[in-house]
Amino acid sequence: MSAAGGTPEQEVARQEQVQGAAAPAAPDGAGGPAVPEPVFRSDVTVELVRSSASDADVLFAARVSTRGEASLDDLRALGTGAVDEKARARAAGLVNYLMRDRHGSPFEHTSMTFYVQAPIFVFREFMRHRIASYNEESGRYRELRPVFYVPGPERRLVQEGKPGAYRFTAGTPEQHALVDAEVRASSTRAYEAYRAMLDAGVAREVARVVLPVTTYSSMYVTMNARALMNFLSLRTRREGSTFPSFPQREIEMCAEVMEEVWRGLMPVTAEAFERNGRVAP
Amino acid sequence: MSAAGGTPEQEVARQEQVQGAAAPAAPDGAGGPAVPEPVFRSDVTVELVRSSASDADVLFAARVSTRGEASLDDLRALGTGAVDEKARARAAGLVNYLMRDRHGSPFEHTSMTFYVQAPIFVFREFMRHRIASYNEESGRYRELRPVFYVPGPERRLVQEGKPGAYRFTAGTPEQHALVDAEVRASSTRAYEAYRAMLDAGVAREVARVVLPVTTYSSMYVTMNARALMNFLSLRTRREGSTFPSFPQREIEMCAEVMEEVWRGLMPVTAEAFERNGRVAP
Amino acid sequence: MSAAGGTPEQEVARQEQVQGAAAPAAPDGAGGPAVPEPVFRSDVTVELVRSSASDADVLFAARVSTRGEASLDDLRALGTGAVDEKARARAAGLVNYLMRDRHGSPFEHTSMTFYVQAPIFVFREFMRHRIASYNEESGRYRELRPVFYVPGPERRLVQEGKPGAYRFTAGTPEQHALVDAEVRASSTRAYEAYRAMLDAGVAREVARVVLPVTTYSSMYVTMNARALMNFLSLRTRREGSTFPSFPQREIEMCAEVMEEVWRGLMPVTAEAFERNGRVAP
Amino acid sequence: MSAAGGTPEQEVARQEQVQGAAAPAAPDGAGGPAVPEPVFRSDVTVELVRSSASDADVLFAARVSTRGEASLDDLRALGTGAVDEKARARAAGLVNYLMRDRHGSPFEHTSMTFYVQAPIFVFREFMRHRIASYNEESGRYRELRPVFYVPGPERRLVQEGKPGAYRFTAGTPEQHALVDAEVRASSTRAYEAYRAMLDAGVAREVARVVLPVTTYSSMYVTMNARALMNFLSLRTRREGSTFPSFPQREIEMCAEVMEEVWRGLMPVTAEAFERNGRVAP
Repeated sequence: MSAAGGTPEQEVARQEQVQGAAAPAAPDGAGGPAVPEPVFRSDVTVELVRSSASDADVLFAARVSTRGEASLDDLRALGTGAVDEKARARAAGLVNYLMRDRHGSPFEHTSMTFYVQAPIFVFREFMRHRIASYNEESGRYRELRPVFYVPGPERRLVQEGKPGAYRFTAGTPEQHALVDAEVRASSTRAYEAYRAMLDAGVAREVARVVLPVTTYSSMYVTMNARALMNFLSLRTRREGSTFPSFPQREIEMCAEVMEEVWRGLMPVTAEAFERNGRVAP
Repeated sequence: MSAAGGTPEQEVARQEQVQGAAAPAAPDGAGGPAVPEPVFRSDVTVELVRSSASDADVLFAARVSTRGEASLDDLRALGTGAVDEKARARAAGLVNYLMRDRHGSPFEHTSMTFYVQAPIFVFREFMRHRIASYNEESGRYRELRPVFYVPGPERRLVQEGKPGAYRFTAGTPEQHALVDAEVRASSTRAYEAYRAMLDAGVAREVARVVLPVTTYSSMYVTMNARALMNFLSLRTRREGSTFPSFPQREIEMCAEVMEEVWRGLMPVTAEAFERNGRVAP
Repeated sequence: MSAAGGTPEQEVARQEQVQGAAAPAAPDGAGGPAVPEPVFRSDVTVELVRSSASDADVLFAARVSTRGEASLDDLRALGTGAVDEKARARAAGLVNYLMRDRHGSPFEHTSMTFYVQAPIFVFREFMRHRIASYNEESGRYRELRPVFYVPGPERRLVQEGKPGAYRFTAGTPEQHALVDAEVRASSTRAYEAYRAMLDAGVAREVARVVLPVTTYSSMYVTMNARALMNFLSLRTRREGSTFPSFPQREIEMCAEVMEEVWRGLMPVTAEAFERNGRVAP
Repeated sequence: MSAAGGTPEQEVARQEQVQGAAAPAAPDGAGGPAVPEPVFRSDVTVELVRSSASDADVLFAARVSTRGEASLDDLRALGTGAVDEKARARAAGLVNYLMRDRHGSPFEHTSMTFYVQAPIFVFREFMRHRIASYNEESGRYRELRPVFYVPGPERRLVQEGKPGAYRFTAGTPEQHALVDAEVRASSTRAYEAYRAMLDAGVAREVARVVLPVTTYSSMYVTMNARALMNFLSLRTRREGSTFPSFPQREIEMCAEVMEEVWRGLMPVTAEAFERNGRVAP
C-alpha cells in the first residue's frame, strides 16, 4: 500500500523534539521544564493568511450563464484592468441582483483562510458550520498551553428574554468581580490538575479532559464568500437584518473581524450583502 | 416577514417553565432549588432512535444504473419478500463489488438517527464529520447538569509512539488513582464556580466557560451508511484495516455501539465493509 | 487489496443477461431483437419509495437544545402516542418558530427517497442540488430506451422578460404544432443514429452522445426535509414567496409532486414553510 | 425586502443587447442574423483561471495540530522563503505521511478555479462531484452555439468486459466513419430543429430540448486539492492505482489537464498522491 520509508515518522519525531525544545527551560535547572504560568485574555485573534477572493470572481462566474465562452474575455479584461466606470456600475448592479434574488453559486468561486485563536466554546459553535475546512491544534498531539479566556469589563453578563432571542445587559461590579475571580481560580485549578497528570506520565489526551471550555485553541479555517456570508448572517447581531440572530458575543467578536477583512477584499459584495438584509444568498 | 403570533415565544416560555419545574426542589424549602451533586461516569450512551436503512436500499439504488426503470420492480419484489436464495446471493455479490471498487453513492440512500451522551471532548471530534446532521444540548439555553466523565479502570493511560500512531499501555494503580482524584476534584471545583456564577445572576453562556471538556453533553446525530462507514473507518482501531486509524478511546466507544447497531440493520453491507479492509466506499 | 471471489463479476454478468432477455424479441424471429419504437410523453414520474420523516422528528431534535436528555422522554411519549392537544399546539408553535428564525438543523433528521423519471435537461438542474444523494440510470452501462419528452398542449412556449425573471405565455397553435413536430422528428432521427451505431458494434457510451437532452432518464434521489425545502423554494414559482424563483416548468412539475408527498408526511412543517414565505430555514 | 432600483434589470438587459449585437450579422442584410454553421470538435478546453494552492498551504494546516500558534511562524517563514533544504525534505515527508494515512483535511485549504468547455455528457458526470462549486452556461438564458463533440480518430470505440470494468479497443475504419457521419448528421439535424423553433418565437428553454448531449457547454468549477484528488482518483484510469477506475474517456481528457495544472502548483502533493496509489486522502 505504501512505501513507508520511515521518513514520515522521523519528520514527526523531529517536530516533537522541536516542540520540546521550545518549552521554557527550568529557571534554576533544578528539575525539568518550568510549569508555564496561566495567562488570561479577553480577546480573540483572527488573521487572514491566504485568500483568492475579489468581486471580479463573482462576475465571471455569473456571466458564464448568459455569456458562456465570452465570459472568459470579460475575465481577461478584468485581469488587465481594462474596465471603465460604466462596467463597474454594471458589475455592482449584477452583484446586487444576484444577492437580492439569492443566486448564491457565483459567490463560491472564492477562498479565504483565517488563522483563529479563541476559546474552545467558540470553536464548538464555529465548527458546526459544515461548508468550511478546519485544522485545529490537537490536545492529543501536543501539550496545551495555559491560556484562558476571561470576560472583559465590557462583556454584558446578564441574560434576559427567551431562548433564541436573548438580550444581554451589563453586569454589576460585583458580578464582574465574581466572574473574573471564579474563571481565574477555576482555570488555574484545572491547569494544575492537567500538569499533575502529565507530570505523573499520564497521556495528554487523558489529562486534558479537566481543561475548561474557556481554554484557548488555535485553528485554520478556509471558507468561500457564500459560506462566509452564511456564517456572518448567523454569528453577528445587527439591527435591520431580515432574519434576526442572537449569537454569543465571543463568536461575534471573531465574525466581526472576519467581516472587516472580507469587506476589504470584496467591497461590492459586502455592500450588497448589507443592503439586502444580510441574508446569505 | 413573519406573522409572529406570539405563539412561538409562548411555546418556548412554557418549555422554560417545564424545565424549571423539573429541577429538584430544595430539600428544606429554605431557599431555592438544591444544587445537584456531581455525578461521575465512565461510559457513553448511544441509542438508535430512528432509522430507514437496510441492505435492500443499496440494491435498488445500484441497480438503477444497469436496469433503470426495472429497478423499481426489483424494489417492489423486495417489499413483498418475493426474493429467493439465488437473489440473495447475487445481492451480496453486488454489495461486495460496490464496496470493493468504491462505488459509494448507493450506500447513501439510508438514514440512521442516534441519541448520544458523551463528554464534550468526544463531541468535538465527532462534529468534525461534516456529512451528518447534529442537534446538541445548549449551554446557552439550559443549565448544564454536573455529569462528568472519569476514565474507568480499563482505560489505558500511558501513551507511546508518535503523533498519528500512538499506542497506549495500562497505567499503574497510582496513575489511575491520581487521574480519578484529579478529574473528580477539578470537575467538582469547576461546577462550584459555575453554580456560584449562576446563583449571582450571571448568564448561563458566561458561567459555563469554566466547565471542563469532560462534562457530558447530549445530541442527536443523523448519518447515512456511507458517512457512517467513513466515521467507523476513522474512529475505530482494527487490525487488518487497509488504512490504520488511531482514535481516542472514548470516541471509539461510541463508534463501537454505532457499528453494532448498524450491523443489525445492514448485515450484508457490514460484512462487505469488514471484508474489504474497512475502507469507506 | 480485495479477495475478489469472482462473484461480483458473475453477478453483473447475470444482470446483463437478464437485461438482454428482457429486450423485446424480434417480431418474426428473422434477425436479432426488434428496435423499440420511440415513445413520447409530456409528464414526469415521481414516487416516494422510502421515508423516515415526520413532524415529530423535528421536535426531538429541537428540544435537545433546551431539554437535553429529557428530549428522549419526549421522543418516547411521541412513540406511544401519549401526546395531547396542548402538546400538539406547542409543537406547531415550536416548528413555526424554528422556520421563522431559520433554525434549520432540526429539520435535517429526516430522509425521503424518491424515484424520478424525467428528461435529462431536468436531471441536469436537479443534480446541481448538492445536499442530496443520487443514483441514476447509466448510458454507459445499459442501452437507453427511446422515451422522449415533448411539451404538452398546456406548456407555455413563449418567454418574455429578462434573465432571472422570465414570464411565459401560451404559444399559438402553429407554435405548438411546430414544437411537437420538431421534437418528434429530431428525437426519432437521433434515436436512429444511436441504433445504427449500436448495431455496428459501437460502445453504448459513444453512441449515446447523439441522444437529445429531452431523453428520459430515471434516478433515485434521497433528501432530508431541510434540503427539500431549499429545493422547493428554488424550483417552484409561487406568489407570496419571500424570494422569487423562476424555475423551468418541467422541474417544477417534479417539485410539485415532491411537495405534495412531503406535505402528507410532515404537514405541520409544510404549513410553517408556506406561512413563512417558503424560505428554507 | 429589496430596494430594487431598477439597476439589476437594466444591467441584465444591457447584457442581452450586447449578446444580440455579438451575433453574426446577416451576410447580405436580407433577413435577420445568419444561422451559425455547426462546428465539430474532438477535444476539450480546460484553463486554470484562479488559484490559491501550494504545497505550503498543506504544511501550515497540518502543523497546527502539533505546533498550534507556532504554525503561524512557520507560515511566515515560508512566506519570506526562509526555508532550507532540510525543511523542504521534512515538508515532503510530512505530506507523504498525511497522504498515506489519509489525513485529508490539511489538503482542503487550497482553491483552484478552472474554466472548462466540454460536451454536456461530460458535465453530467462532472457535476456529480458535490464538493465543488459550479457555474455553467445556461440554455435558458442564452442561445446555445452549434458546437458539437465528435469522437476523434484516436477514440477507442468498442467496449468489452462488464459494467464497472469496461475495456475499450480501437474501432474499425468503418465504425469510425459511421460514428463521424452519424454524429455530424444527427447534430446538424437537431440544431436545425432548434433554430426552427427559435425562429418561430419559441422560448430558448423549450427549443433546446432537441439538442444532443454531445453539445458543448462551458463552466467555471472551483475545487480544493482534496476534492480534486478524489475527482482524479475516479476520473483517470491508471495502472498501479490502489482502487481501479474506469472513467469515460472524454471526462478523463478533462481530468488529465487538471492534473497537469495541479502538479505544477503542488508538485510535492502530486508526487505523494501518485506514490500512495492515487487514493484521495
